[in-house]
Amino acid sequence: MAKEIKELTPRSENYSQWYNDLVIKADLAENSAVRGCMVIKPYGYAIWEKMQRYLDDMFKETGHVNAYFPLFIPKSFLSKEADHVEGFAKECAVVTHYRLKNDPNGKGVVVDPEAKLEEELIVRPTSETIIWSTYRNWIQSYRDLPILCNQWANVVRWEMRTRLFLRTAEFLWQEGHTAHATKEEAQEEAIRMLNLYVNFAENYLSIPVIKGDKTESEKFPGALNTYTFEAMMQDGKALQAGTSHFLGQNFAKAFDVTFVNQENKQEYVWATSWGVTTRLIGALIMTHSDDNGLVLPPKIAPYQVVIVPIYKNEEQLSQINEKVEEIVCKLKRMGVSVKYDNAENKKPGWKFAEYELKGVPVRLAMGGRDLDNNTIEVARRDTLTKETVSCDNIEIYITNLLDEIQNNIYQKAFKLRESKTICVDSYEEFKEKIEEGGFIYAHWDGTSETEEKIKEDTKATIRCIPLEGDKTPGKCMVTGKTSAQRVLFARSY
Amino acid sequence: MAKEIKELTPRSENYSQWYNDLVIKADLAENSAVRGCMVIKPYGYAIWEKMQRYLDDMFKETGHVNAYFPLFIPKSFLSKEADHVEGFAKECAVVTHYRLKNDPNGKGVVVDPEAKLEEELIVRPTSETIIWSTYRNWIQSYRDLPILCNQWANVVRWEMRTRLFLRTAEFLWQEGHTAHATKEEAQEEAIRMLNLYVNFAENYLSIPVIKGDKTESEKFPGALNTYTFEAMMQDGKALQAGTSHFLGQNFAKAFDVTFVNQENKQEYVWATSWGVTTRLIGALIMTHSDDNGLVLPPKIAPYQVVIVPIYKNEEQLSQINEKVEEIVCKLKRMGVSVKYDNAENKKPGWKFAEYELKGVPVRLAMGGRDLDNNTIEVARRDTLTKETVSCDNIEIYITNLLDEIQNNIYQKAFKLRESKTICVDSYEEFKEKIEEGGFIYAHWDGTSETEEKIKEDTKATIRCIPLEGDKTPGKCMVTGKTSAQRVLFARSY
Repeated sequence: MAKEIKELTPRSENYSQWYNDLVIKADLAENSAVRGCMVIKPYGYAIWEKMQRYLDDMFKETGHVNAYFPLFIPKSFLSKEADHVEGFAKECAVVTHYRLKNDPNGKGVVVDPEAKLEEELIVRPTSETIIWSTYRNWIQSYRDLPILCNQWANVVRWEMRTRLFLRTAEFLWQEGHTAHATKEEAQEEAIRMLNLYVNFAENYLSIPVIKGDKTESEKFPGALNTYTFEAMMQDGKALQAGTSHFLGQNFAKAFDVTFVNQENKQEYVWATSWGVTTRLIGALIMTHSDDNGLVLPPKIAPYQVVIVPIYKNEEQLSQINEKVEEIVCKLKRMGVSVKYDNAENKKPGWKFAEYELKGVPVRLAMGGRDLDNNTIEVARRDTLTKETVSCDNIEIYITNLLDEIQNNIYQKAFKLRESKTICVDSYEEFKEKIEEGGFIYAHWDGTSETEEKIKEDTKATIRCIPLEGDKTPGKCMVTGKTSAQRVLFARSY
Repeated sequence: MAKEIKELTPRSENYSQWYNDLVIKADLAENSAVRGCMVIKPYGYAIWEKMQRYLDDMFKETGHVNAYFPLFIPKSFLSKEADHVEGFAKECAVVTHYRLKNDPNGKGVVVDPEAKLEEELIVRPTSETIIWSTYRNWIQSYRDLPILCNQWANVVRWEMRTRLFLRTAEFLWQEGHTAHATKEEAQEEAIRMLNLYVNFAENYLSIPVIKGDKTESEKFPGALNTYTFEAMMQDGKALQAGTSHFLGQNFAKAFDVTFVNQENKQEYVWATSWGVTTRLIGALIMTHSDDNGLVLPPKIAPYQVVIVPIYKNEEQLSQINEKVEEIVCKLKRMGVSVKYDNAENKKPGWKFAEYELKGVPVRLAMGGRDLDNNTIEVARRDTLTKETVSCDNIEIYITNLLDEIQNNIYQKAFKLRESKTICVDSYEEFKEKIEEGGFIYAHWDGTSETEEKIKEDTKATIRCIPLEGDKTPGKCMVTGKTSAQRVLFARSY
């Protein structure tokens, strides 16, 4: 029965429902009593913690430090950067009062009208404004630059349609905000962080991504360039996995942040910002998982290995316990995270299904025959294959296997993407092929009008102008005008 | 000149001003544009990160997992636990709208009256209500228990008088929320976490604390017992460093969280919650620091060792660089965090003052004579003493020294506390002695009336009913009625 409860809608039947089922049944997250806000459950949060630890180390290795800025932003701050206010002020949580009082008409509490704020506070949708109002006091001279701050925080955007991890009113993220003396330095920083993210996505999350520049209409409100890295989900749709922005001097001008440069001249400061969010957990799920449950890359899995004993009686269990104890020690010494589940109130079959659902990369099982033969059964979550191997040097075998799995699921995702990626030259073909899902490289004339038309006709957007790959010029598939290079189209999350 | 800018108000002149000066000048935090909300600057945040890492490891070692619950709490949730609403609903940030729009009368944005929430949302002042409303769905049977969750989060309490780290409208904390099948188990958990905190305070922060039970009037709104650990600041005032609450079945009843026990009977779940906040950074500062700046315990210092070269010319600098490189390697191999500051645009004297202000536990300096003699100058921040030692086995010397400093600053704080702690038997003497600051152990009749009278007369509160130490009964110093044991009085932050 336990097995049935855990059953997921197959991807082929309803990909969207499969995702929702999986998030709930694998105990990753759930909707809360507050509309659009999720509860990240311990297993989901453990994945986020793994991501945080790696990213934080990478940020620090590249010279960044963490800090913390206020949750609230005075309403007037949002108006200071014209594009920014258009992009963010519209859907946000507004704090208008600072006190409740007992309801004079009966039970409960009501807002105290006397405790109205002079100026409303916005719960941060992103922190450029509050941070640049702070940097103003930190920066006088070129000697105070660069400032390379990051913060791990919650943010709120009042989304109308929400979906666990992919789009929620409140989400967790990190946001880097850097200040530089020159344009070149800021541009380099934006690209550096883009590349750091791409490295993280590909080598830790095993998600192949395409990096590029966003078009004018898709870029961050207030940015000169928004660099993105785009992943393909198994249904062929694109998912924007994170962004890095070159902000030019826009926020410095909005908050009057200047410095005296080496030539003793007053100048506005150059800025970047960059962030990834709990949405990456959604990307991870939708890239690798299957109809049996999660498939997690070993580097991100809360447990990399689970061991289950299969025994006839207490005596045999205690022999297995003893043998497994050794294996656990050896694996831990190699830095492998391992869980031994010898709980007696659940059957091996239930445990197998459970850890399959939870995406533990490697499952080991030891039974009576294994005891006799000094062997153990090794099951891979990614391929669902099993083999019986010797316990001698099992720790070497497992660490190699984890590397292989990490690489294999990347290759699998990469091949899927390649199989669903095409080049198209005519708009007729585009409209036909976009219905099949997948990525389409096509020529575009560079105008927002054409971009908008394509979006209206096909629901496909320009995911990015790729930074790498084919740069051959051509003719726009819609207007026939000159195109500098093919751009990447897809329908997206 | 740099030195002068950094000068602090001496503690003897104005302790409160000294604290404010130090927080600002050591670059720990500053006030933001949002009333009562602070910016935690990178150096201050680095201290918080160290605390987080140790605490998080300790929580996990005791079986806890992290999760994340919504920032917002529906207004009606707060009313469900009677004491809780009294304690928290009164001063809180209330979200009433979810959209801004362009001001029809001109520039900027205004709240869109059409985007009014049906039910107002409260920015969490603490998360018992939202978490217990969630636990309701997680718990059916005793097999689902215990639940041992912690979250790292920001919270908001609309304080009227704020002070950096000590009392701010928004602050960072961790809050543990556990659910248990029996009263005994929950009580044990509350005490376990209290002891974990005490271990952390004493062995990591080097802050001696007194642990005890809060009185009825001082306990957490909704708790049956609030356990606290209280530290003495250098001015003799007490600071509540953290708390652990036994919540009984109050929140389970408020949110109807029941389970089927082993006897197949429906029962309400038992609860605890426990937390420490960025206030601990304030406690750290006020316990150890001096008129020259911060004094940080080595386990919490962002850098444990700084090395400064003293050179006549480029050639000598490059010789010193080479020699120091070796020392840095050796120290890092021992797990010591070390910074080599050979920046050429600042003089050694400026660097010495800077690292003294920042509380780096050990400063090493190497000059020409040291090069010749294979020696290095070692300066301790805690005692401000210097000595010249051999470079051979310097890493052993330093790691031992760091342990000694960690211990020494604890002993220093402990001795100060002992010298300012007295027992008093008459109320006359109490009123006289409380003016001198410090801790007073006195007998109390156990009533809120007497407690309130003492507070009104003297501004002193009962910090706790100590769990350890002298338990001899006596007579209340005010009413002469029976007292079970002496309790701890002090004026407090």
